[in-house]
Amino acid sequence: MDIDVVLSPAVLAPEALKGRRVVMVDVLRASTTIATALASGARAVIPATDTGEAGRLAANLDPDFSLLGGERDGKPVAGFGAGNSPAEYGPEAVQGKTVVLTTTNGTRALAKAKAGIEVAVGGFVNAARAARFLAEGLERGEPGTILCAGWHGRVSLEDTLCAGLLVSRVVTAAQASGLTDSSKMAYALYQGSRDDIERALRSTEHARRLIALDFGDDITRCAQIDTLDVLPVQHDGRITASGA
Amino acid sequence: MDIDVVLSPAVLAPEALKGRRVVMVDVLRASTTIATALASGARAVIPATDTGEAGRLAANLDPDFSLLGGERDGKPVAGFGAGNSPAEYGPEAVQGKTVVLTTTNGTRALAKAKAGIEVAVGGFVNAARAARFLAEGLERGEPGTILCAGWHGRVSLEDTLCAGLLVSRVVTAAQASGLTDSSKMAYALYQGSRDDIERALRSTEHARRLIALDFGDDITRCAQIDTLDVLPVQHDGRITASGA
Repeated sequence: MDIDVVLSPAVLAPEALKGRRVVMVDVLRASTTIATALASGARAVIPATDTGEAGRLAANLDPDFSLLGGERDGKPVAGFGAGNSPAEYGPEAVQGKTVVLTTTNGTRALAKAKAGIEVAVGGFVNAARAARFLAEGLERGEPGTILCAGWHGRVSLEDTLCAGLLVSRVVTAAQASGLTDSSKMAYALYQGSRDDIERALRSTEHARRLIALDFGDDITRCAQIDTLDVLPVQHDGRITASGA
Repeated sequence: MDIDVVLSPAVLAPEALKGRRVVMVDVLRASTTIATALASGARAVIPATDTGEAGRLAANLDPDFSLLGGERDGKPVAGFGAGNSPAEYGPEAVQGKTVVLTTTNGTRALAKAKAGIEVAVGGFVNAARAARFLAEGLERGEPGTILCAGWHGRVSLEDTLCAGLLVSRVVTAAQASGLTDSSKMAYALYQGSRDDIERALRSTEHARRLIALDFGDDITRCAQIDTLDVLPVQHDGRITASGA
């Protein structure tokens, strides 16, 4: 079963995504925020790798039908209409709008993910849809890679756990023994924490930073499993809901 | 408890080793081979990052008192006196000699490890000594990093498991909750596999490659815990047994 997990963009070899379906995972919080925005009726999310690019992209959009959002190291960006908390992306904020979003790690991982043949965004909230995207690829002979966003090039536990959940949904326990090392690691870590994902998420370095910034409620939201029936897919620099 | 695990040199940030004790871990097989050579009476192991550098270093040594060893992708190198199997580094081969060694991942990780204040080499075979090296550092206020060699920039399960063993020897279960994400991952993975480390090692991508190259016996040797009472330490480009 050809499902690989890349634990951080820093360990992504050039060419490694060629011919593969990619699910980018940034649980805290870009994946959750993007899925929430699209489930709330946003027309599209345009990921920008830095705040300057985000501002330029937003300047070309009708301000009544767009929202500029994002963060740097978890903190809001001056002049932006929203941060990176999924709580800010409900229907009242984004319905019918195009969101330009830049985050510390997630949008950079999305830029790298472009090397894949199809790119989707996955988190715990839409794990069922992300897993189905990978499973459908395997049925068509397209191998899959789960690309964890991590944190400043490092590995993050929350993304690894979500990757493990996706692997668990796609392979059987017997197939897990033939996986790559990093897939096996994600699978085993998820199996060890599956009974209380929110507790595991709250133990992470990233959660400790978010709690210090008073975003503790976001962790609860990001730890929900299968609450959003949406698959964000990236084409030509825009992320839209698959099938929308 | 400031013990970090770096799962691959590719995720090692510049400056991240500054002021820290470093244990480089390359279970299959550089760590095990270096520990075996020094425990067998080799005077020193000189790590070389590539075969050309290894040949130049060896050319300056008395051929009667030196051995040029190494591998590329697990395979022997033409013209070298030995490969990278610990079985080739017994007393009959290395007693009183200086070994020049180049391996695919381990010697490159050692080159990066130089940024630490003290650098040692750890594997399962000398885990007790490597853990004591880290614990003594912590007592002196020197934080520790376990640098996993991985495989061509990727993460490898066998090095992660050994890092988890070293973390387990240095921190209590209660302290483990305050570790960095990657340290916690290594710790949890080791705890899940500790009852049969050889089985876990045999399941790795690297072991499958070694078995295909007929080096299956090396895996058994590399999975032994605390069999060698030796701590290889690196100073000025030479690795010698600490206290020798």
